Amino acid sequence: MLETRTEHDLLGDRQVPADSYWGIHTLRAVENFPITGRPISTNPYLIRGLAYVKWAAATANEKLGILDHRRADAIGQACREIVDGRWHEQFVVDVIQGGAGTSTNMNANEVIANRALEILGHGRGEYAELHPNEHVNLSQSTNDVYPTAVNIATIFAIDDLLDAMRVLQEAFATKAVEFTDTVKMGRTQLQDAVPMTLGQEFATYSVMIDEDRTRLDEAALLVHEINLGATAIGTGLNAPAGYAEAACDTLRGLTGFPLVLATDLVEATQDVGQFVHLSGVLKRIAVKLSKVCNDLRLLSSGPRAGLNEINLPPVQAGSSIMPGKVNPVIPEVLNQVAYEVIGNDVTITMAAESGQLQLNAFEPIIVHSLSEGMRHLGAACRILADRCVLGITANTDLLRARVEDSIGLVTALNPYIGYTASTRIAQEALVSGRRVADLVIEAGLLDREELDRLLSPEHLANLRATGSPRQTPVAAAAEVVS
Amino acid sequence: MLETRTEHDLLGDRQVPADSYWGIHTLRAVENFPITGRPISTNPYLIRGLAYVKWAAATANEKLGILDHRRADAIGQACREIVDGRWHEQFVVDVIQGGAGTSTNMNANEVIANRALEILGHGRGEYAELHPNEHVNLSQSTNDVYPTAVNIATIFAIDDLLDAMRVLQEAFATKAVEFTDTVKMGRTQLQDAVPMTLGQEFATYSVMIDEDRTRLDEAALLVHEINLGATAIGTGLNAPAGYAEAACDTLRGLTGFPLVLATDLVEATQDVGQFVHLSGVLKRIAVKLSKVCNDLRLLSSGPRAGLNEINLPPVQAGSSIMPGKVNPVIPEVLNQVAYEVIGNDVTITMAAESGQLQLNAFEPIIVHSLSEGMRHLGAACRILADRCVLGITANTDLLRARVEDSIGLVTALNPYIGYTASTRIAQEALVSGRRVADLVIEAGLLDREELDRLLSPEHLANLRATGSPRQTPVAAAAEVVS
Amino acid sequence: MLETRTEHDLLGDRQVPADSYWGIHTLRAVENFPITGRPISTNPYLIRGLAYVKWAAATANEKLGILDHRRADAIGQACREIVDGRWHEQFVVDVIQGGAGTSTNMNANEVIANRALEILGHGRGEYAELHPNEHVNLSQSTNDVYPTAVNIATIFAIDDLLDAMRVLQEAFATKAVEFTDTVKMGRTQLQDAVPMTLGQEFATYSVMIDEDRTRLDEAALLVHEINLGATAIGTGLNAPAGYAEAACDTLRGLTGFPLVLATDLVEATQDVGQFVHLSGVLKRIAVKLSKVCNDLRLLSSGPRAGLNEINLPPVQAGSSIMPGKVNPVIPEVLNQVAYEVIGNDVTITMAAESGQLQLNAFEPIIVHSLSEGMRHLGAACRILADRCVLGITANTDLLRARVEDSIGLVTALNPYIGYTASTRIAQEALVSGRRVADLVIEAGLLDREELDRLLSPEHLANLRATGSPRQTPVAAAAEVVS
Amino acid sequence: MLETRTEHDLLGDRQVPADSYWGIHTLRAVENFPITGRPISTNPYLIRGLAYVKWAAATANEKLGILDHRRADAIGQACREIVDGRWHEQFVVDVIQGGAGTSTNMNANEVIANRALEILGHGRGEYAELHPNEHVNLSQSTNDVYPTAVNIATIFAIDDLLDAMRVLQEAFATKAVEFTDTVKMGRTQLQDAVPMTLGQEFATYSVMIDEDRTRLDEAALLVHEINLGATAIGTGLNAPAGYAEAACDTLRGLTGFPLVLATDLVEATQDVGQFVHLSGVLKRIAVKLSKVCNDLRLLSSGPRAGLNEINLPPVQAGSSIMPGKVNPVIPEVLNQVAYEVIGNDVTITMAAESGQLQLNAFEPIIVHSLSEGMRHLGAACRILADRCVLGITANTDLLRARVEDSIGLVTALNPYIGYTASTRIAQEALVSGRRVADLVIEAGLLDREELDRLLSPEHLANLRATGSPRQTPVAAAAEVVS
Repeated sequence: MLETRTEHDLLGDRQVPADSYWGIHTLRAVENFPITGRPISTNPYLIRGLAYVKWAAATANEKLGILDHRRADAIGQACREIVDGRWHEQFVVDVIQGGAGTSTNMNANEVIANRALEILGHGRGEYAELHPNEHVNLSQSTNDVYPTAVNIATIFAIDDLLDAMRVLQEAFATKAVEFTDTVKMGRTQLQDAVPMTLGQEFATYSVMIDEDRTRLDEAALLVHEINLGATAIGTGLNAPAGYAEAACDTLRGLTGFPLVLATDLVEATQDVGQFVHLSGVLKRIAVKLSKVCNDLRLLSSGPRAGLNEINLPPVQAGSSIMPGKVNPVIPEVLNQVAYEVIGNDVTITMAAESGQLQLNAFEPIIVHSLSEGMRHLGAACRILADRCVLGITANTDLLRARVEDSIGLVTALNPYIGYTASTRIAQEALVSGRRVADLVIEAGLLDREELDRLLSPEHLANLRATGSPRQTPVAAAAEVVS
Repeated sequence: MLETRTEHDLLGDRQVPADSYWGIHTLRAVENFPITGRPISTNPYLIRGLAYVKWAAATANEKLGILDHRRADAIGQACREIVDGRWHEQFVVDVIQGGAGTSTNMNANEVIANRALEILGHGRGEYAELHPNEHVNLSQSTNDVYPTAVNIATIFAIDDLLDAMRVLQEAFATKAVEFTDTVKMGRTQLQDAVPMTLGQEFATYSVMIDEDRTRLDEAALLVHEINLGATAIGTGLNAPAGYAEAACDTLRGLTGFPLVLATDLVEATQDVGQFVHLSGVLKRIAVKLSKVCNDLRLLSSGPRAGLNEINLPPVQAGSSIMPGKVNPVIPEVLNQVAYEVIGNDVTITMAAESGQLQLNAFEPIIVHSLSEGMRHLGAACRILADRCVLGITANTDLLRARVEDSIGLVTALNPYIGYTASTRIAQEALVSGRRVADLVIEAGLLDREELDRLLSPEHLANLRATGSPRQTPVAAAAEVVS
Repeated sequence: MLETRTEHDLLGDRQVPADSYWGIHTLRAVENFPITGRPISTNPYLIRGLAYVKWAAATANEKLGILDHRRADAIGQACREIVDGRWHEQFVVDVIQGGAGTSTNMNANEVIANRALEILGHGRGEYAELHPNEHVNLSQSTNDVYPTAVNIATIFAIDDLLDAMRVLQEAFATKAVEFTDTVKMGRTQLQDAVPMTLGQEFATYSVMIDEDRTRLDEAALLVHEINLGATAIGTGLNAPAGYAEAACDTLRGLTGFPLVLATDLVEATQDVGQFVHLSGVLKRIAVKLSKVCNDLRLLSSGPRAGLNEINLPPVQAGSSIMPGKVNPVIPEVLNQVAYEVIGNDVTITMAAESGQLQLNAFEPIIVHSLSEGMRHLGAACRILADRCVLGITANTDLLRARVEDSIGLVTALNPYIGYTASTRIAQEALVSGRRVADLVIEAGLLDREELDRLLSPEHLANLRATGSPRQTPVAAAAEVVS
Repeated sequence: MLETRTEHDLLGDRQVPADSYWGIHTLRAVENFPITGRPISTNPYLIRGLAYVKWAAATANEKLGILDHRRADAIGQACREIVDGRWHEQFVVDVIQGGAGTSTNMNANEVIANRALEILGHGRGEYAELHPNEHVNLSQSTNDVYPTAVNIATIFAIDDLLDAMRVLQEAFATKAVEFTDTVKMGRTQLQDAVPMTLGQEFATYSVMIDEDRTRLDEAALLVHEINLGATAIGTGLNAPAGYAEAACDTLRGLTGFPLVLATDLVEATQDVGQFVHLSGVLKRIAVKLSKVCNDLRLLSSGPRAGLNEINLPPVQAGSSIMPGKVNPVIPEVLNQVAYEVIGNDVTITMAAESGQLQLNAFEPIIVHSLSEGMRHLGAACRILADRCVLGITANTDLLRARVEDSIGLVTALNPYIGYTASTRIAQEALVSGRRVADLVIEAGLLDREELDRLLSPEHLANLRATGSPRQTPVAAAAEVVS
């Protein structure tokens, strides 16, 4: 039979397992929210964030003379253990929960209290010695603890994602350099347009990701603004003078993050703008990475009835019925993660819009959606770099042949023979299947030598590269790689 | 100088133009909602819907003895004129408005009252004779009038859209018949898969649209349930016994639509489920039409560096710089309408979710988003049929050559040489660039005659057609056309 | 050291754990898709769906003479075990995966093959005896197996959700009956409107859920249409004549679901319209349940500075800092699930729109989003019924006092004293803080006796109830309960 | 009979009205895109943006010696006229159009060419003298002209919106100062929490808007990066060396905007990241403004059965049936605009994700959605400030009474009597309906004098204000106002 201990709250007594660090508040929350079956421990950054905040609060409380050294020390030690990865399995509340994070906060208060009690030589549940609310939660409210912990968790997660994006950016930059001389047709609206190089095409992806990393860096700044010390609604009720500053300073020291206290704590306590903004940036990243994967899948379509410009490295058999078929499964998985992130943005938007008066009660779903999205995006970036981009090869000869065959070459003659004549030549080429150059010479519009110069694919693709750093993305890519 | 008349409401007196049919309530609404600059008259079905409802209400009121014949008759005549398209320019309130449609209802009450006064030989504004609220709005509230009028408007709009979709469906069906014998490679995940016919491909689009029409028909049913007689919150306060039934009967007769009274008027008055549902169906239609347009743009990519399977008829020059370029502008416009409709669905979702207690105050944006979406979708369907689909041609020889060249043919040999041997042949074909058939014979796996039979493209594409009506979508398409 | 066996595919040899039922294809997929860390076994209905389909296929293959009885029997037995809940832990591929479900299908093929080998007395990996592709996957392709399995999984999930919704509907119906006589003010646009009963308010929620269950039932019908026998792209290549019908018949028998074969298999293989539609219906359900929870939270706001009309049963302490505070945590959790479902709808929409040509490669994220959404919605419905709705109590006296105090009562006098006089009385009441009835008598508009009759709250709220079944939702609710 | 002139393009000859400035390309586009019925002239900033770009291009072309002074001057003069608001009615292409903006560009080329011809003394259509493509569009492509013009239009629109938001911010700041001393109950999760001031509540809204203006300012920066000179795909084909820099310099001078050339023109030509980002920021703004309006509607609910904390100024009669009812119509209209903007974000997201290879063909719907959203948001902000916020009054006495009555006061006693004792007192207060202070004294936990000091509402609400600039949003608000 399971051994238990009795705990009490405003609803009465309950038995909790004797060896659990969590207590009655956690127990009720577990019973109240059997939604996903996934505990908050699946988001370890959040658990670490909570531990950091509780640690900083205890330190500030001790400094301000409202918590004795012995208790503060025990709380601090318990928190440090959690930061180091211990006791995470005790964080058992569901990731989707009502109560604006109160249950997460109480889960942390109880685990830390009981672990601290143990450190102090007491039994679990002996709250007269050290109480989850009166000591661990001292000077705090869920409404400042939870958002602050979430911000810290988010900073960790953003760092991971930035790193994964860097890996992918470098992979594209590497290939851009490799494909510098590979001439190909550029396309607009899926129709043949004018020549370019495959290096330019891949450099573009590298540049896109670089820009998105900058946006993500900017969004991260907003998450460094915390409301610790706001307590229930931002008025700081029950936190002693100087607490907010002391706690924030300590937290800055513990985490190494340049956290700042929000200017207006009432506003900061009800606002989730930083998450809406971050989600918007994640959506932007998702949109662009999905576009890139759409392109990769399109360019590698074939092998015989598709564009067949590039070859993605095969990573698994593509079909249970079609032998030898290899599919672009890695880009496909990133596409799907992108759709998930874009959907999450709507979830977060609705949760944010539904906040009322002094608090947003729906932060748990915001946190869950954000952290899952960032984790999945990061994983997909890394796998795309490692198992796809770096192994891409180009069908160089085919690409060059298509350029020489293309009607789009006529565009380059516009300045010499005019739009009207060019249009006529283009139509003739399309109908007859003949080459543009031959038709131009036949028509006596230009001589062969001049044509050769004007229509050199390298010339066309790199026309404006000379002397203009703007037009050499490949050079920029080379820098990224070096 | 503008001549005016004085009107009065609970906020005081205002001057309105002497010759306007609308009055003080409309004036205030125009001033309060300068949002889009687009008046509700841009949705003529809504204006007609309002007129039908007011007409039905007057008739029911007369029948129940609470409105005299003279006034009822004048109101009815004014409404009939509006149904016939007159006075729409008097409906000047902005399409995005606060107040749950009250301003739209009051605009209607005022226009009808003043036109009825005129019919009765009185001047505009002589409300002692016939009052916008006390006579035109008798037994009514915005909260039953407006949703009922919207339902009627929606039925008209759905009919238009169904018709436009039918035109597009028939266009695809026509082409499916035309392309019955055009063999081509089918693709999965953009990779060459197994043979099929272009007729099957186009028949699919016809079938998709047909299914979506069925879904739209089902959604239309929900819009036939009305809450007329509910008055303010569904309790029917101030409407005499029998009014709801009488008004609904009359409305059914006037419109010819099989309208039914909602079972629970309190629920019907606060619920906008029928619009959320309709929007979901519109989104489904948008998703599928967008997919079809994506396919058309992909299949017509080229002309020399793309798939180049089909040719869309040119409808305008494609580029201001690239002579002779022709772009798939018609599918592109439908894609964009689809994105609009999908975005509208989120707008409608949020507006629906934000309804509180006994009423949804945000029905105007729901109505606006739905009506615009349906109108744009219908226009895009018609233009796609007329200016794109019907003019499509196929590059038949190229399509056949690709099938004969394809590695995917090996799939058909699975049952004869096994998945493992097939995989080996496929890999050899890919690496060597040789044909599957040659490799199979070389390997002594099958003889030429048997191979010829097994690899006949027609055979492959239509393998299961014989005797099985399921596999002959082209036949079904033929039926649609005939 | 881990014992392994060697397996081979088109990319070469790999070692797989000797005791694993899954093989090389699964291994590669696990390595390729390290996205969420959640294996497909977290969706047990999908695993069962796969087993049913493989079982039906083996049976049909045997019947058509292309699979011997011994192998068919072993495959069938392995499938039956999976249906019964065994071997689910062997389904290890990530829920978000590229390849259109190929890895899920191959995972199933391998697990079933190895379990069948075991049943036949062979060792795992002895595929010469019974091969994952050549026997388990015979006459099949991922592109018909996976969608069919997903449809079956979806039917199971819909049944669960319908049942959970029924529980919630009954809870509201129970309270509607309980609150039949509780008079209160109805509100429109959050402003006091006219009287109603709390019974009517709760009956509305019951009716809403009932309607949504009907919509969900309709959506379920679409999921009963399967494409088994379509193989790669719908042409049925490699499946013998009669296979599709035989497999569908068998599957119908095994599952007990009235499955039908799609009319056009090419269309059915590329279309995910049934999921877009289902997601739209789930979104509708989410929108309405969220609205209901918004209402519950609003009506129970307080206890002293809120509406304070009803009391939700306390289920946990509400605050770590505010003693005695109890929050509406159960409705809050449903709100968040609703936002998740609404976000998922966008994910599904994008995945559906991105399907290309003969297949939608993004079905895995559609499946994941749908199944999670349905599971969470169901859990939230049950918990809302059990831990919230059934324990709600009303503050009856306060509710009645507010009705008697209200200015909205004047609406009922419209037919007797006119809109203009009523407006004047309302304004006086608002400014003076006095009661409507007193002002009307003072103004000599009506006498006390008549007023008492007209303003009886019960009379107002149920005005139209008599003899009209439409206006008695409470009666309908009573039926649901009984 | 309409007089016409004949024009020619690659599809053949067409008659255009003799007096139209637009020509054959515009005519075909009008026929191809009969979608919304709304011409691009409804977005005057876009028309001005186009004129600026064409003007800058002509100037650069002249400077580089490829366009003679006479033509350049005439083109410049025509563009200046358009910038000044003339000829906008000649921009007749539909706002939703295929072709990636080509039709908009050609519409501009034709109007400018024909007006320039007129200035030069030639007839319309005499393109041998001055040609829409060869002169007006010289060195340009739709793919650099259109995005650049859109960026300029967007800068104008952002400026408008920033200004409207400033007006609203100031309105809230004004009220925050006015309500500095108005004590009230703060609420979390709609439950009574702890005291605050109405000034703090309104200051929060002011701070929120201020933060959002900062985000919008940042987003505007991204729109200052242009790709003029990129021509078709970013390689600058057909533009002479130095053109991009010269055109950008000129454009900077003409507009006064600090525009910069994108570093990588290939990337810039296919990327619409700046619009996705801007839309994300607009969504954030919409989310927060909607939340603010939700609060205003909630706080003003009543008058007798609601929170009744504040009174919104009446701006129109609220109901056609309920006399004297006044509704929060102005916040309601902003809510709806917010839902529209949030829906638009999904539209823009999908359009952005669907860009392929070297161009995004769907920029027209992005432009349309963004410009409409910004315009509507701006209008709604101004009307909210002018017709709602500035006229709000507070029910001061009622607010104070509720604080004194509240159970939440007990929170302030936590540090003195502990969480456990506080919880017991709170429960007693709730059950008995008695005041917290009385119960605390009765229990002998604190004496009256100490209680009076601890429970002074002003003290509670402003607890942390002293000496801490962070906690005085009202002071910050005062600064905004002064």
